[in-house]
Amino acid sequence: MARVLTPRAEDFPRWYQDLIAKAKLADNGPVRGTMVIRPAGYAIWERMQAEMDGRIKAAGAENAYFPLFIPESYLKREAEHVEGFSPELAVVTHGGGKQLAEPVVVRPTSETVIGEFMAKWIDSYRDLPLLLNQWANVVRWELRPRIFLRTSEFLWQEGHTAHATREDARAYARRILHEAYEDLMVNVLGIPVVVGLKTARERFAGATATYTCEGMMGDGKALQLGTSHELGQNFAKAFDINYSSAEGGREHAWTTSWGTSTRMLGGLIMCHGDDNGLRVPPKLAPIQAYVMIVKDGEGPGGPAEAAQKLCDALRDAGVRVALDDRTDTAFGRRAVDAELRGYPVRVEVGPRDLAAGNAVVVRRTDGSKAPTPVADVVGAVLAALEADQRALHDQALEFRRSRTVEVSTLAEAIEASATGWARVPWSAVGVEGEAEANGQGVTVRCLVRADGSVPDSEDEPDLVAILARAY
Amino acid sequence: MARVLTPRAEDFPRWYQDLIAKAKLADNGPVRGTMVIRPAGYAIWERMQAEMDGRIKAAGAENAYFPLFIPESYLKREAEHVEGFSPELAVVTHGGGKQLAEPVVVRPTSETVIGEFMAKWIDSYRDLPLLLNQWANVVRWELRPRIFLRTSEFLWQEGHTAHATREDARAYARRILHEAYEDLMVNVLGIPVVVGLKTARERFAGATATYTCEGMMGDGKALQLGTSHELGQNFAKAFDINYSSAEGGREHAWTTSWGTSTRMLGGLIMCHGDDNGLRVPPKLAPIQAYVMIVKDGEGPGGPAEAAQKLCDALRDAGVRVALDDRTDTAFGRRAVDAELRGYPVRVEVGPRDLAAGNAVVVRRTDGSKAPTPVADVVGAVLAALEADQRALHDQALEFRRSRTVEVSTLAEAIEASATGWARVPWSAVGVEGEAEANGQGVTVRCLVRADGSVPDSEDEPDLVAILARAY
Repeated sequence: MARVLTPRAEDFPRWYQDLIAKAKLADNGPVRGTMVIRPAGYAIWERMQAEMDGRIKAAGAENAYFPLFIPESYLKREAEHVEGFSPELAVVTHGGGKQLAEPVVVRPTSETVIGEFMAKWIDSYRDLPLLLNQWANVVRWELRPRIFLRTSEFLWQEGHTAHATREDARAYARRILHEAYEDLMVNVLGIPVVVGLKTARERFAGATATYTCEGMMGDGKALQLGTSHELGQNFAKAFDINYSSAEGGREHAWTTSWGTSTRMLGGLIMCHGDDNGLRVPPKLAPIQAYVMIVKDGEGPGGPAEAAQKLCDALRDAGVRVALDDRTDTAFGRRAVDAELRGYPVRVEVGPRDLAAGNAVVVRRTDGSKAPTPVADVVGAVLAALEADQRALHDQALEFRRSRTVEVSTLAEAIEASATGWARVPWSAVGVEGEAEANGQGVTVRCLVRADGSVPDSEDEPDLVAILARAY
Repeated sequence: MARVLTPRAEDFPRWYQDLIAKAKLADNGPVRGTMVIRPAGYAIWERMQAEMDGRIKAAGAENAYFPLFIPESYLKREAEHVEGFSPELAVVTHGGGKQLAEPVVVRPTSETVIGEFMAKWIDSYRDLPLLLNQWANVVRWELRPRIFLRTSEFLWQEGHTAHATREDARAYARRILHEAYEDLMVNVLGIPVVVGLKTARERFAGATATYTCEGMMGDGKALQLGTSHELGQNFAKAFDINYSSAEGGREHAWTTSWGTSTRMLGGLIMCHGDDNGLRVPPKLAPIQAYVMIVKDGEGPGGPAEAAQKLCDALRDAGVRVALDDRTDTAFGRRAVDAELRGYPVRVEVGPRDLAAGNAVVVRRTDGSKAPTPVADVVGAVLAALEADQRALHDQALEFRRSRTVEVSTLAEAIEASATGWARVPWSAVGVEGEAEANGQGVTVRCLVRADGSVPDSEDEPDLVAILARAY
């Protein structure tokens, strides 16, 4: 097969851009840093949304929608928050043909405006916990944009909750982290994320603790795929989110926030893509089986009829299926496009194989092509979808292990970050070591306990720091 | 029952505001004209989205996402379009801490940016039709905002398509109008809309034809609930959307656009609401059956257990159900809230009725309360949901008929618009009569043929104009 993409080993960033363009996933927008998500990319995002939305609802949160525009003054109420976001704000100064009395900012995130309304809606302990989520676009002006990873506008969900106690807030921030984020990433996206605690330096602006899911990309770098924050009482104090307790006193609430975004699309590409294009895990794939008519052959018993019957049978078996009957386009070109798009299974129906009673089942994960009796195709597809969901995850896990080293000093960790991740005792890094690593383009992705669980605080003993270069 | 809302007959706009606040559907946002959609309102919107999205996909369109920010220069390329939207634009002048070289506008609609990308993506007739849709927020600065009806930011879907011929574009604009919009509004929202053609004066800025779905609200005014536009070759010429035809020439495409928004929530309230609150048609309702434990009664055979069993049985029967077990709140208050929210059916489970083997099935549409043997509740609920979907539609249709008069002169039509709709020969109105009516706050909502079908042009003979005051 002719070379379609720049090989990953030759130029990983170029491969990434090539893939997005040739698989028609997205384009750069006209305003610098913005993006156009094309139907092939958006269909994957819709599947991510559906899977995430179900998990968020299962955790008891309800969807709502808060305004795009936030008064500039809101941002200023929480000191760390305004400092963190000021350099990235887009500011609207004119509306309806007039200069505005107070400029408004386009939300970079909605803690402040949601804080304002939580204060209005919460009266007593009976109103707690208040568990909200919204699907929205946000804007953070990017000087070095990269599609899906860093764009001036992106799509995300942002959850915001208020609780009566610190313990309850912490438990909920962690519930979302594990039951929604980690579960979706590992079991649907097939990305074996490491879940841990961010250091103070890497924390969200205004948070008291930030938890993260970090994935290893195909070049050994890390990508932060989702974060969940304990905000302590910082926003509750700034926005007067308080409640009357069962005992009759007036208390500030404890709040959390958590988000995942279209950045997951970038992570998906860089985790599972190969030199032929994207590979989409079957559970996520909008199209799981792509049935292709190789060559025309009208009439009963021909490829067109057989392909249509296979589509119906696959759909009846619960498979998301699409038919490619564009026989006026060369089959080779369509096959290349199907590889680029990463459909988990192709079923090729052509006159020659059909004469022998077969269709060809092609698995995207390993590239295998198996002539299969037509009557066995549904079973073969179902087996392939099941196996390849696991295979993609396991390949990514194996790759992560092969590119992760255990070291004992900061210098070794920084060196190891050139090709992958380093696990090093946090005590050997510390705040000063972290600053030194940052100076060389290496960050502490997260802290984990020796047994892999998530620490409560960076002050716990025997923590392991994971250092890497990151997107 | 104590008076919860200002009665509609006393002050309809006040009733509307009261209902939205007390049913906790939405709040005003902090920036003038923006809104916060609360979970109870957003859940209805999500159901509208799901039903609409399915219809749009069934019509072959694919979802995509285009940027929020549009270069100011794009708007200026189509003369009527920029004139139509200039007074309503929000303009971003600063981003990332700096003044922008070219200000960007926040999309009031996406014809221009989508036109730019259609031009890139379309090469030959094989690429047509190109059928796109996006779910997004848009901004049109509003001086006299009203929640859901006119807000500076609103949520919507906007479809944009390109076709090889005018006939194909027209057929698609009408397909969406009838198969997606009219079907959803009539059969799910239960709003008996009139579907017709807008006059040149009321047309979308840049369109050659605008089709509309108009509903009558509870005060006799009209609400435009959705529009579908033929854009001719106006945008294709402004953005160079052209294709090589099968014959080898280079031709401009013909484009359409079409949209429905959170305004449908306002229409739902004003069409079906009564003095006790909202009434949500069963097919639309996020919660169809609201099972309430009247009073505590733990242990086997008590209200709590019976209510839980009823919930399970209803869910198994395909009913969207919620359990209200907040027995620490007075039952009367919870019942009032349930009325306000408009759940189609309540199932009240209390110790007294239960002792007689009954639960009480309360239908929101007519307020009827029927003690029902527990074993018959599922059947009674299913029957009520079916009947009340029809009943709400038929009530609205009957109301519309009672408030619509056939007249023959402009003066009579304007007079009739004080209380409802007037049907008058378009030949008795004309362009000058339309301007005169506008001066008195009355608009031509649409033109229809005598048989009720949608005309191709306002120049057809024997058209009927529908005149009304409108939101």
